[in-house]
Amino acid sequence: MNEPGFAATAEPPYYAVIFTSQRTDVDDGYDAMATRMVELAARQPGFLGVESTRSPSGFGITVSYWTSLASIANWRNHAEHRLAQAEGLSRWYSHFATRVTRVERAYSRP
Amino acid sequence: MNEPGFAATAEPPYYAVIFTSQRTDVDDGYDAMATRMVELAARQPGFLGVESTRSPSGFGITVSYWTSLASIANWRNHAEHRLAQAEGLSRWYSHFATRVTRVERAYSRP
Repeated sequence: MNEPGFAATAEPPYYAVIFTSQRTDVDDGYDAMATRMVELAARQPGFLGVESTRSPSGFGITVSYWTSLASIANWRNHAEHRLAQAEGLSRWYSHFATRVTRVERAYSRP
Repeated sequence: MNEPGFAATAEPPYYAVIFTSQRTDVDDGYDAMATRMVELAARQPGFLGVESTRSPSGFGITVSYWTSLASIANWRNHAEHRLAQAEGLSRWYSHFATRVTRVERAYSRP
């Protein structure tokens, strides 16, 4: 997946979806899908930003930020995103975990 | 930092600290510090687990899981951790962001 860097979120409260995943060795369109999902997510209502990284061993963490639980539900149920989720489960990820969280406090440096 | 893999957290609610960082090119004890901090965190009251990854470009995300905001505050103020934070700010990270969140929902596959 691309690395968009740091997300410029405003003051809490807002919501974060933590998606942790282990990639399989199967490429087969993965990068294109990942890039597309970031572009698509960025156009959804309530999207605030995304941070994503993956080590050479294939263990990755992507955190997307949203204004509300409703915007997260909307994105989860987006038709094209649901197809990508199904493909991810069958081919691209050997394991993953998703956590929906509410951001209570945030700070950054410098 | 080591990759401990997936954290085996129980049912929500619990808390997650999302730490996003960009590494400098300075090594100088970084790996030993990072390993030590994971070991030390794991011995603190309320620690549930940690997930961490970093890309070859140095952009990393570490998520640690805790039973309560009090356990997070305790860890943040731990003396040895505070030293590591100061060193991180002066040498190892060019930028970082910390977000304290409450986990509302979680699921994983398979």
